[in-house]
Amino acid sequence: MRTEVEIINIGDELLIGQVVNTNASWMGSLLSQNGFYVKTIKAIADSAEAIESALDYATKNAQVVLLSGGLGPTKDDITKKVLAKYFDSEMYFNEQSYENIARLFYSRGFPVSDDNRLQAFLPVKAQAIPNRNGTAYGMWFEKDNTVIVSMPGVPFEMKTMMEKEVLPRLKARFSVEVYHQKVIMTTGLGESMLAKEIEAEENALPDYIKLAYLPKPGFVRLRLSARGTDDEQLKSELEYHTSQIVSRLGEKVVYGFDEESLEQVLGNLLLNKRLTVSTAESCTGGTIAQTLTTKAGSSAYFLGGIVSYSNEAKMQLLGVDKVLIDKFGAVSKEVVEQMAKGGQQAFKSDYCIATSGIAGPGGGTDEKPVGTTWIALAGPEGIVSAKYSLGEDRGRNIFRASTIALNMLRMAIIEGND
Amino acid sequence: MRTEVEIINIGDELLIGQVVNTNASWMGSLLSQNGFYVKTIKAIADSAEAIESALDYATKNAQVVLLSGGLGPTKDDITKKVLAKYFDSEMYFNEQSYENIARLFYSRGFPVSDDNRLQAFLPVKAQAIPNRNGTAYGMWFEKDNTVIVSMPGVPFEMKTMMEKEVLPRLKARFSVEVYHQKVIMTTGLGESMLAKEIEAEENALPDYIKLAYLPKPGFVRLRLSARGTDDEQLKSELEYHTSQIVSRLGEKVVYGFDEESLEQVLGNLLLNKRLTVSTAESCTGGTIAQTLTTKAGSSAYFLGGIVSYSNEAKMQLLGVDKVLIDKFGAVSKEVVEQMAKGGQQAFKSDYCIATSGIAGPGGGTDEKPVGTTWIALAGPEGIVSAKYSLGEDRGRNIFRASTIALNMLRMAIIEGND
Repeated sequence: MRTEVEIINIGDELLIGQVVNTNASWMGSLLSQNGFYVKTIKAIADSAEAIESALDYATKNAQVVLLSGGLGPTKDDITKKVLAKYFDSEMYFNEQSYENIARLFYSRGFPVSDDNRLQAFLPVKAQAIPNRNGTAYGMWFEKDNTVIVSMPGVPFEMKTMMEKEVLPRLKARFSVEVYHQKVIMTTGLGESMLAKEIEAEENALPDYIKLAYLPKPGFVRLRLSARGTDDEQLKSELEYHTSQIVSRLGEKVVYGFDEESLEQVLGNLLLNKRLTVSTAESCTGGTIAQTLTTKAGSSAYFLGGIVSYSNEAKMQLLGVDKVLIDKFGAVSKEVVEQMAKGGQQAFKSDYCIATSGIAGPGGGTDEKPVGTTWIALAGPEGIVSAKYSLGEDRGRNIFRASTIALNMLRMAIIEGND
Repeated sequence: MRTEVEIINIGDELLIGQVVNTNASWMGSLLSQNGFYVKTIKAIADSAEAIESALDYATKNAQVVLLSGGLGPTKDDITKKVLAKYFDSEMYFNEQSYENIARLFYSRGFPVSDDNRLQAFLPVKAQAIPNRNGTAYGMWFEKDNTVIVSMPGVPFEMKTMMEKEVLPRLKARFSVEVYHQKVIMTTGLGESMLAKEIEAEENALPDYIKLAYLPKPGFVRLRLSARGTDDEQLKSELEYHTSQIVSRLGEKVVYGFDEESLEQVLGNLLLNKRLTVSTAESCTGGTIAQTLTTKAGSSAYFLGGIVSYSNEAKMQLLGVDKVLIDKFGAVSKEVVEQMAKGGQQAFKSDYCIATSGIAGPGGGTDEKPVGTTWIALAGPEGIVSAKYSLGEDRGRNIFRASTIALNMLRMAIIEGND
């Protein structure tokens, strides 16, 4: 039995784009993983009309309605008043809530303010939900078999209230579905190419396992999600279909699972094999070094990098021949390979990744349009390089070139051990 | 006259919390700034039922309904089909859309796939909206004086489509309130410090000018927004209050306006003064070079950088004395100043920015805890350096150190000319 949830986040700041609604995604994630079905997420204004109209709709369309926001002590916090009126409820002074408010104030060395004392008044028709981290208690209403819970909007307060109070009560009150998911992390192929590649595997999925393509620059995440009743069966089916897709795509495309980043996977590979790497970047301008060093502990395998943006720097620091630059241009197989070799020698690293391309928007020619990018990898067995045509957007070119280069290194390490 | 907008973002990934709905806040911000009133933001499932029910509700409650998501080439992308059915519309082959798809494929050296060819079929009843950055065209429907626009969910595609195509048409079609805003870009002070600093200026604001503090790592944007009817009056008042705040904070804190990035402002300064810069980075791992090179045309002033993650690299490539590393440690005034000097010489640049610190989470000691960061700047008049205690989070440490370093260079250039 599917229990449907509607999340309503209250606050003008969400509508004018001042605050990104991370509460919603956090709640959605927690609820889904606990077998609830999140049907709608809605952000609305701090107005009685908006809240009432959202409640009218939600109580007809979901069994659980979760509200966050508008419970603070200031004038623009109207949720409690609107709910009391909506459920036609008197208010009462909740001793427990007051003690909680007093405790929070005293711990900071302040007396309770009048505005905060008012927070201890709660609607008679609601069950009071403790707030361990703040002054605003939550409220649990029931109407025609629908549960409506109002929580504070402060993420830190809402999260603890959800985890410790609301979710356990919801699980006791409603039956939930079994839910499992697996995310396959891929790089190098766009959505439509991936879809073509795994067409047979996708067609073989049963109804209750869904596949979603979630692209972000340089990557596509393939999310398999299974819902149903039989825990063991779902798990093993999910595993089976995941492995079918992974073996079809191969490890050049599938670099990891469940939100792992490419630099994490690569870093672990380098650590395990006790290998070191350096970078010699032109068009990527330091992005590969920056990406490698986002991982804690990367100093164990990343020795350093040279960003040789000028031809001078390519010659002086990486030993690129002026003759080659003059003859083939800086964006060429010859130059990028010398850069990789030069970096490998300068840092005495096992591998060196080099890039040279036209990131744009200027600098393109008919022969070498914007997006033309050479990537080279110097390694223990020699140098390999390849040319890519990446597109017209500077930021994306830089990011894609970096991703391709990191994956090239990952594959070289894996294949070097076969 | 208020024009009310409902935003509907389509995608299971939003409901299960896998993706944070940044499209919504971006659209909300753009629309508000252009005088539209965003009434509701809704995230719904990739299902015909959910889309139809959301359309039923939205078309009754708003004059503009903006949808994003579900226009991709794969099976889970159903928005176009659902809309065609909802508006009872036949499909036709749109030549322009096909040419756009073909152009995107050919530029990457691929033929158009069958799935992507299908994207060129559009509903007869919709006006086709070009997509400069992707294969999915947008669709503009009208029904009972309500405009319904469907856009792709990929942020990069949606944003360009909103800015270049949808917003101009909406502004031509609907009347909007007079709205002006000015964003003051600041760096170096946190929200509460800023608030204290400009308390008097904030209290002097009239009702119809609102001040919002919008923090992001390393920066706080101060957004002054004015709504009303008298265009000229609003503009001049906004200018006056902006200048009051700016002169209170000074140019070390205020680096620019209206979403300018620090690297844009700095890049323009370097260009105008015909100065060059290089980098010698340790703890920031290439982030400063990467940030400088995000700006198109940065090769005119950025000569290159060295990421000297290992002590070896600091000695070999930047000429740091081993004696100093042994005596003071790599994270020290002595070493970071030599790094700056060494980078300046290696690249023959006017300026060189150097960083050396403990980004964490490991590597901290009692004397030099995680977050300890030295930043040096070598320039035409010599070397300056300073020590910062940045905190415990690796990612934020790296980002904050980079920001401080870039602002240090900006101030040096400005002050060098006084």
